[in-house]
Amino acid sequence: MIETDILIIGAGPTGLFTVFEAGLLKMKCHLIDALPQPGGQCSELYPKKPIYDIPAFPEVLAGDLVDNLMKQIEPFEPGFTLGERADTIEEQEDGTFIVTTNKGTIHKAPVVAIAGGLGSFEPRKPQISNIADYEDKGVVYVIRDPEVYRDQRVVLAGGGDSALDWAIFLADVASEVTLVHRRNEFRGALDSAEKVAELAKAGKINLITEAEVTDIFGEGKVEAVRINHKTQGELIKETDHFIPLFGLLPKLGPIANWGLEIEKNAIKVNNALDYQTNREGIYAIGDVNTYPGKLKLILCGFHEATLMCQSAYKRINPGKKFVMKYTTVGGVTGFDGSHKVAKKDQVINISEL
Amino acid sequence: MIETDILIIGAGPTGLFTVFEAGLLKMKCHLIDALPQPGGQCSELYPKKPIYDIPAFPEVLAGDLVDNLMKQIEPFEPGFTLGERADTIEEQEDGTFIVTTNKGTIHKAPVVAIAGGLGSFEPRKPQISNIADYEDKGVVYVIRDPEVYRDQRVVLAGGGDSALDWAIFLADVASEVTLVHRRNEFRGALDSAEKVAELAKAGKINLITEAEVTDIFGEGKVEAVRINHKTQGELIKETDHFIPLFGLLPKLGPIANWGLEIEKNAIKVNNALDYQTNREGIYAIGDVNTYPGKLKLILCGFHEATLMCQSAYKRINPGKKFVMKYTTVGGVTGFDGSHKVAKKDQVINISEL
Repeated sequence: MIETDILIIGAGPTGLFTVFEAGLLKMKCHLIDALPQPGGQCSELYPKKPIYDIPAFPEVLAGDLVDNLMKQIEPFEPGFTLGERADTIEEQEDGTFIVTTNKGTIHKAPVVAIAGGLGSFEPRKPQISNIADYEDKGVVYVIRDPEVYRDQRVVLAGGGDSALDWAIFLADVASEVTLVHRRNEFRGALDSAEKVAELAKAGKINLITEAEVTDIFGEGKVEAVRINHKTQGELIKETDHFIPLFGLLPKLGPIANWGLEIEKNAIKVNNALDYQTNREGIYAIGDVNTYPGKLKLILCGFHEATLMCQSAYKRINPGKKFVMKYTTVGGVTGFDGSHKVAKKDQVINISEL
Repeated sequence: MIETDILIIGAGPTGLFTVFEAGLLKMKCHLIDALPQPGGQCSELYPKKPIYDIPAFPEVLAGDLVDNLMKQIEPFEPGFTLGERADTIEEQEDGTFIVTTNKGTIHKAPVVAIAGGLGSFEPRKPQISNIADYEDKGVVYVIRDPEVYRDQRVVLAGGGDSALDWAIFLADVASEVTLVHRRNEFRGALDSAEKVAELAKAGKINLITEAEVTDIFGEGKVEAVRINHKTQGELIKETDHFIPLFGLLPKLGPIANWGLEIEKNAIKVNNALDYQTNREGIYAIGDVNTYPGKLKLILCGFHEATLMCQSAYKRINPGKKFVMKYTTVGGVTGFDGSHKVAKKDQVINISEL
């Protein structure tokens, strides 16, 4: 069991900065994130895109923002449970919380800070009425091990980088690759599109554009799909696998069942004080929360994390008073023994000069 | 008369970042600051000191923080009235405000954002009962033109860089320089202290440590001061000028008379919504405001500025709806015609490849 002071659900920018503010108050943090690396959307969806509205950064790449935050919190030695989704929460008699992930990892803390952003990312699924019946029976939304498809027939659907890249990769692995896309236009890297066009001309990819998969057939597993072409009508295509690659959609996920007040897919908090939810000891900060006038901006998450930590301090240290020192005056003392501090003005005994 | 959308009182980090958030919403800003340059305390008091708690900056010099903010807001062409203090505010019949500075400069805006930090900086005065009687009659707290003291007798008091530097400078200008300090220790640059010690040995500075000026004498102007020495008793020193250099103290100043609810030298605001004061259209953001749980941190000022701008937008554009676009998606379009935007994913027509 992993024990900590503040258990942070979500390792995006807000969750990461929480470690720093908690550290200044001598509280330790552990972060859980469904993604395999810290940084949330910034790392997963747009690491190379510039952000312009982080204060005092006229321009910063999302990936660099995450790197800077990781460096800033390093002295406070955060723990990470990555690639696992926080599933259940149980309040103990002593007021602490036990949070268990989908992989069974158990965490215990007196304070839980949900910094879950837009939620955990789940695949966007096509509108095919019987698709759920075939999930993991020929239908997957994410390719984990391409060797599964060796010498098998595969139908891919989608028009982005993921569909293009997997079509190219599987052309050498699968016995037959069909790529179905609604439009003639693909949204992705030019060289990937060129490669797909080339493989299609060489007969190694069966490219069907301006078409959609509308039905799945098979006894207990995928055996064929129906493809509707915009102008040429419908076609039944025999296949062993159907893999729609339509990107990821954020979902609040299991947190929605934690007994928290939810409004429009976000968690309601007391923004007039400490961003606490309706459950004492559980806070929600950053894009995952909502309150009157809420803006889903990274800089707002930083502020919310900071005020939340003050409240968490009182919960963890009842009756104890903490005198806030400006970092410019008091410096930053890490849990790793490091100490950064501004050079003080020199005090010189003039009678000794 | 200077007209703008949002008139910002105070050009510290919070005031500066307000220009950016307002700019994203197409509102123009003008800033008034009593200091001669933008940046507030960061520029005036500690430009070379590192700050450790600005999100995503493991360490940043206060002066560099200001430079970054100035660069970030440049596209939104803010106006500045510097070296003047906002003195009076008058609400017009149409709901706009007229703000006049101590030098008579007149500004008009529908929204006023007070980002006044700890207030305007005023000199810290010594506890001498009759000192006010001699102000500008031999007593000043800030040296503006050292030529005033040529061939005059000057008594300086203080133990910091300012007292050391002026003692050194005036040693070549004044007919006699006396430096009085409570302790033997000076807080300042080593080479300044060394220079003062050297000039004292050479008889060019009359250095009296472990002593305090406790009284002022003179008919209509300073003629002498009483100096109390810790061990050697008192001494009457004839002089033309007495200049205490005890640093600056922040004072809320004339804003305290603007009809705003004040609590502990700060302006009360509605933190649950938009950081508006009790006077509609007047907001207070950053260190100058107070609300339950308030922290006087720069990062909190950034958040407050951002929410405040949303509310200001509604006041300036009644009934108009603004759809917020993330800068990562929509980019930043400056009033100067500049446009920064992230590179979009390419859209490739595959049938043309």
